[in-house]
Amino acid sequence: MTDQPSQAAPAVSLAGFQQLIRDMYLEKDVARGVDGTFMWLMEEVGELAGALRNGTHEDRLGEFADVLAWLATIANVAGVDLSEAVTRKYGAGCPGCGQYVCRCADAEKP
Amino acid sequence: MTDQPSQAAPAVSLAGFQQLIRDMYLEKDVARGVDGTFMWLMEEVGELAGALRNGTHEDRLGEFADVLAWLATIANVAGVDLSEAVTRKYGAGCPGCGQYVCRCADAEKP
Repeated sequence: MTDQPSQAAPAVSLAGFQQLIRDMYLEKDVARGVDGTFMWLMEEVGELAGALRNGTHEDRLGEFADVLAWLATIANVAGVDLSEAVTRKYGAGCPGCGQYVCRCADAEKP
Repeated sequence: MTDQPSQAAPAVSLAGFQQLIRDMYLEKDVARGVDGTFMWLMEEVGELAGALRNGTHEDRLGEFADVLAWLATIANVAGVDLSEAVTRKYGAGCPGCGQYVCRCADAEKP
Protein backbone atom coordinates (compact mmCIF):
# COMPACT_ATOMS: atom_id res chain seq x y z
CA MET A 1 0.00 0.00 0.00
CA THR A 2 1.36 3.37 -0.94
CA ASP A 3 0.30 6.93 -0.35
CA GLN A 4 -2.69 6.56 -2.67
CA PRO A 5 -6.39 6.01 -2.12
CA SER A 6 -7.02 2.27 -2.03
CA GLN A 7 -8.39 0.56 -5.11
CA ALA A 8 -11.52 -1.55 -4.80
CA ALA A 9 -10.71 -4.52 -2.55
CA PRO A 10 -7.02 -5.00 -3.35
CA ALA A 11 -5.34 -8.09 -1.91
CA VAL A 12 -3.87 -6.94 1.39
CA SER A 13 -0.53 -8.48 2.20
CA LEU A 14 0.43 -8.83 5.83
CA ALA A 15 3.70 -7.03 5.08
CA GLY A 16 1.83 -4.26 3.26
CA PHE A 17 -0.54 -3.77 6.19
CA GLN A 18 2.32 -3.69 8.69
CA GLN A 19 4.09 -1.10 6.50
CA LEU A 20 0.91 0.96 6.20
CA ILE A 21 0.60 1.09 9.98
CA ARG A 22 4.33 1.87 10.25
CA ASP A 23 4.02 4.79 7.82
CA MET A 24 0.89 6.03 9.54
CA TYR A 25 1.92 5.82 13.19
CA LEU A 26 5.55 4.77 13.79
CA GLU A 27 6.78 8.05 15.23
CA LYS A 28 4.13 8.02 17.98
CA ASP A 29 4.44 4.27 18.46
CA VAL A 30 8.18 4.32 19.12
CA ALA A 31 7.78 7.22 21.56
CA ARG A 32 5.16 5.23 23.48
CA GLY A 33 7.14 1.99 23.47
CA VAL A 34 6.02 -1.62 23.72
CA ASP A 35 4.56 -1.47 27.23
CA GLY A 36 2.38 1.56 26.61
CA THR A 37 1.29 0.17 23.26
CA PHE A 38 0.32 -3.16 24.77
CA MET A 39 -2.35 -1.49 26.91
CA TRP A 40 -3.92 -0.05 23.77
CA LEU A 41 -3.95 -3.51 22.23
CA MET A 42 -5.74 -4.77 25.34
CA GLU A 43 -8.32 -2.03 25.11
CA GLU A 44 -9.05 -2.99 21.51
CA VAL A 45 -9.20 -6.69 22.41
CA GLY A 46 -11.86 -5.76 24.98
CA GLU A 47 -13.81 -3.83 22.36
CA LEU A 48 -13.57 -6.84 20.04
CA ALA A 49 -15.04 -9.04 22.77
CA GLY A 50 -17.91 -6.58 23.13
CA ALA A 51 -18.55 -6.47 19.39
CA LEU A 52 -18.55 -10.27 19.20
CA ARG A 53 -21.13 -10.41 21.99
CA ASN A 54 -23.39 -7.50 21.12
CA GLY A 55 -22.16 -5.77 17.98
CA THR A 56 -23.21 -5.70 14.34
CA HIS A 57 -21.14 -7.26 11.56
CA GLU A 58 -19.92 -3.73 10.79
CA ASP A 59 -18.80 -3.25 14.42
CA ARG A 60 -16.89 -6.53 14.27
CA LEU A 61 -15.10 -5.53 11.06
CA GLY A 62 -13.93 -2.35 12.77
CA GLU A 63 -12.76 -4.06 15.94
CA PHE A 64 -10.87 -6.84 14.15
CA ALA A 65 -9.14 -4.13 12.12
CA ASP A 66 -8.17 -2.24 15.25
CA VAL A 67 -6.76 -5.31 16.99
CA LEU A 68 -4.71 -6.11 13.88
CA ALA A 69 -3.50 -2.51 13.71
CA TRP A 70 -2.31 -2.49 17.33
CA LEU A 71 -0.70 -5.87 16.87
CA ALA A 72 1.14 -4.49 13.82
CA THR A 73 2.11 -1.46 15.89
CA ILE A 74 3.67 -3.60 18.61
CA ALA A 75 5.44 -5.69 15.97
CA ASN A 76 6.83 -2.48 14.44
CA VAL A 77 8.15 -1.27 17.77
CA ALA A 78 9.57 -4.72 18.62
CA GLY A 79 11.18 -5.18 15.19
CA VAL A 80 9.14 -8.26 14.29
CA ASP A 81 8.05 -9.00 10.71
CA LEU A 82 4.52 -10.44 10.95
CA SER A 83 4.77 -12.06 7.54
CA GLU A 84 7.97 -13.87 8.52
CA ALA A 85 6.33 -14.83 11.82
CA VAL A 86 3.33 -16.59 10.29
CA THR A 87 5.32 -18.15 7.47
CA ARG A 88 7.76 -19.71 9.91
CA LYS A 89 5.11 -20.97 12.30
CA TYR A 90 2.27 -22.00 9.96
CA GLY A 91 3.75 -21.98 6.44
CA ALA A 92 4.69 -25.65 6.56
CA GLY A 93 1.41 -26.85 8.09
CA CYS A 94 0.08 -27.17 11.62
CA PRO A 95 2.96 -26.68 14.08
CA GLY A 96 1.59 -29.61 16.08
CA CYS A 97 1.08 -32.33 13.46
CA GLY A 98 2.67 -30.86 10.32
CA GLN A 99 -0.53 -31.38 8.32
CA TYR A 100 -2.34 -28.72 6.27
CA VAL A 101 -5.60 -29.99 7.75
CA CYS A 102 -4.81 -30.42 11.43
CA ARG A 103 -4.98 -33.96 12.75
CA CYS A 104 -3.69 -33.21 16.24
CA ALA A 105 -5.50 -34.96 19.07
CA ASP A 106 -8.16 -32.70 20.60
CA ALA A 107 -5.99 -32.23 23.68
CA GLU A 108 -3.40 -30.50 21.47
CA LYS A 109 -5.76 -27.85 20.13
CA PRO A 110 -9.09 -28.46 21.82
CA MET B 1 -1.36 -20.56 0.48
CA THR B 2 -2.31 -23.96 -0.83
CA ASP B 3 -1.64 -27.50 0.21
CA GLN B 4 2.03 -27.24 -0.73
CA PRO B 5 5.22 -26.67 1.22
CA SER B 6 5.84 -22.92 1.37
CA GLN B 7 8.35 -21.36 -0.99
CA ALA B 8 11.11 -19.18 0.43
CA ALA B 9 9.45 -16.11 1.98
CA PRO B 10 6.38 -15.75 -0.26
CA ALA B 11 4.24 -12.65 0.21
CA VAL B 12 1.56 -13.66 2.70
CA SER B 13 -1.81 -12.11 2.04
CA LEU B 14 -4.13 -11.59 4.98
CA ALA B 15 -6.85 -13.46 3.09
CA GLY B 16 -4.44 -16.31 2.33
CA PHE B 17 -3.43 -16.62 5.96
CA GLN B 18 -7.04 -16.58 7.14
CA GLN B 19 -7.83 -19.29 4.58
CA LEU B 20 -4.82 -21.35 5.68
CA ILE B 21 -6.05 -21.25 9.27
CA ARG B 22 -9.57 -22.05 8.09
CA ASP B 23 -8.38 -25.10 6.15
CA MET B 24 -6.19 -26.21 9.04
CA TYR B 25 -8.57 -25.81 11.97
CA LEU B 26 -12.12 -24.77 11.03
CA GLU B 27 -13.87 -27.98 12.07
CA LYS B 28 -12.51 -27.79 15.63
CA ASP B 29 -12.94 -24.01 15.73
CA VAL B 30 -16.64 -24.07 14.86
CA ALA B 31 -17.27 -26.82 17.42
CA ARG B 32 -15.59 -24.71 20.11
CA GLY B 33 -17.38 -21.48 19.13
CA VAL B 34 -16.38 -17.86 19.58
CA ASP B 35 -16.44 -17.79 23.40
CA GLY B 36 -14.22 -20.82 23.86
CA THR B 37 -11.88 -19.62 21.14
CA PHE B 38 -11.54 -16.20 22.71
CA MET B 39 -9.95 -17.71 25.82
CA TRP B 40 -7.29 -19.32 23.65
CA LEU B 41 -6.61 -15.95 22.05
CA MET B 42 -6.18 -14.48 25.53
CA GLU B 43 -3.74 -17.21 26.50
CA GLU B 44 -1.65 -16.44 23.43
CA VAL B 45 -1.82 -12.70 24.10
CA GLY B 46 -0.39 -13.43 27.55
CA GLU B 47 2.40 -15.49 26.02
CA LEU B 48 3.13 -12.62 23.63
CA ALA B 49 3.43 -10.26 26.60
CA GLY B 50 5.89 -12.67 28.19
CA ALA B 51 7.94 -12.98 25.01
CA LEU B 52 8.07 -9.19 24.62
CA ARG B 53 9.35 -8.87 28.18
CA ASN B 54 11.74 -11.79 28.44
CA GLY B 55 11.82 -13.71 25.18
CA THR B 56 14.21 -13.96 22.27
CA HIS B 57 13.42 -12.59 18.81
CA GLU B 58 12.57 -16.18 17.83
CA ASP B 59 10.10 -16.47 20.73
CA ARG B 60 8.45 -13.22 19.65
CA LEU B 61 8.06 -14.42 16.07
CA GLY B 62 6.27 -17.51 17.35
CA GLU B 63 3.96 -15.64 19.71
CA PHE B 64 2.97 -12.98 17.17
CA ALA B 65 2.14 -15.82 14.76
CA ASP B 66 -0.01 -17.55 17.38
CA VAL B 67 -1.95 -14.40 18.24
CA LEU B 68 -2.59 -13.80 14.54
CA ALA B 69 -3.69 -17.42 14.11
CA TRP B 70 -6.21 -17.26 16.96
CA LEU B 71 -7.47 -13.92 15.71
CA ALA B 72 -7.96 -15.50 12.28
CA THR B 73 -9.72 -18.41 13.96
CA ILE B 74 -12.20 -16.15 15.73
CA ALA B 75 -12.76 -14.22 12.49
CA ASN B 76 -13.46 -17.52 10.72
CA VAL B 77 -16.01 -18.56 13.33
CA ALA B 78 -17.61 -15.09 13.35
CA GLY B 79 -17.73 -14.85 9.55
CA VAL B 80 -15.47 -11.79 9.35
CA ASP B 81 -13.05 -11.24 6.44
CA LEU B 82 -9.89 -9.75 7.98
CA SER B 83 -8.74 -8.32 4.66
CA GLU B 84 -12.05 -6.50 4.20
CA ALA B 85 -11.84 -5.33 7.83
CA VAL B 86 -8.46 -3.62 7.51
CA THR B 87 -9.15 -2.24 4.04
CA ARG B 88 -12.35 -0.59 5.23
CA LYS B 89 -10.83 0.84 8.39
CA TYR B 90 -7.29 1.77 7.31
CA GLY B 91 -7.28 1.54 3.49
CA ALA B 92 -8.15 5.20 3.03
CA GLY B 93 -5.73 6.53 5.65
CA CYS B 94 -5.90 7.05 9.40
CA PRO B 95 -9.52 6.66 10.55
CA GLY B 96 -9.01 9.73 12.77
CA CYS B 97 -7.49 12.30 10.40
CA GLY B 98 -7.72 10.64 6.96
CA GLN B 99 -3.97 11.08 6.36
CA TYR B 100 -1.51 8.34 5.36
CA VAL B 101 0.89 9.72 7.92
CA CYS B 102 -1.29 10.33 10.96
CA ARG B 103 -1.63 13.94 12.04
CA CYS B 104 -4.18 13.38 14.79
CA ALA B 105 -3.61 15.30 18.00
CA ASP B 106 -1.79 13.17 20.57
CA ALA B 107 -5.00 12.86 22.58
CA GLU B 108 -6.53 10.97 19.64
CA LYS B 109 -3.85 8.29 19.48
CA PRO B 110 -1.46 9.02 22.34
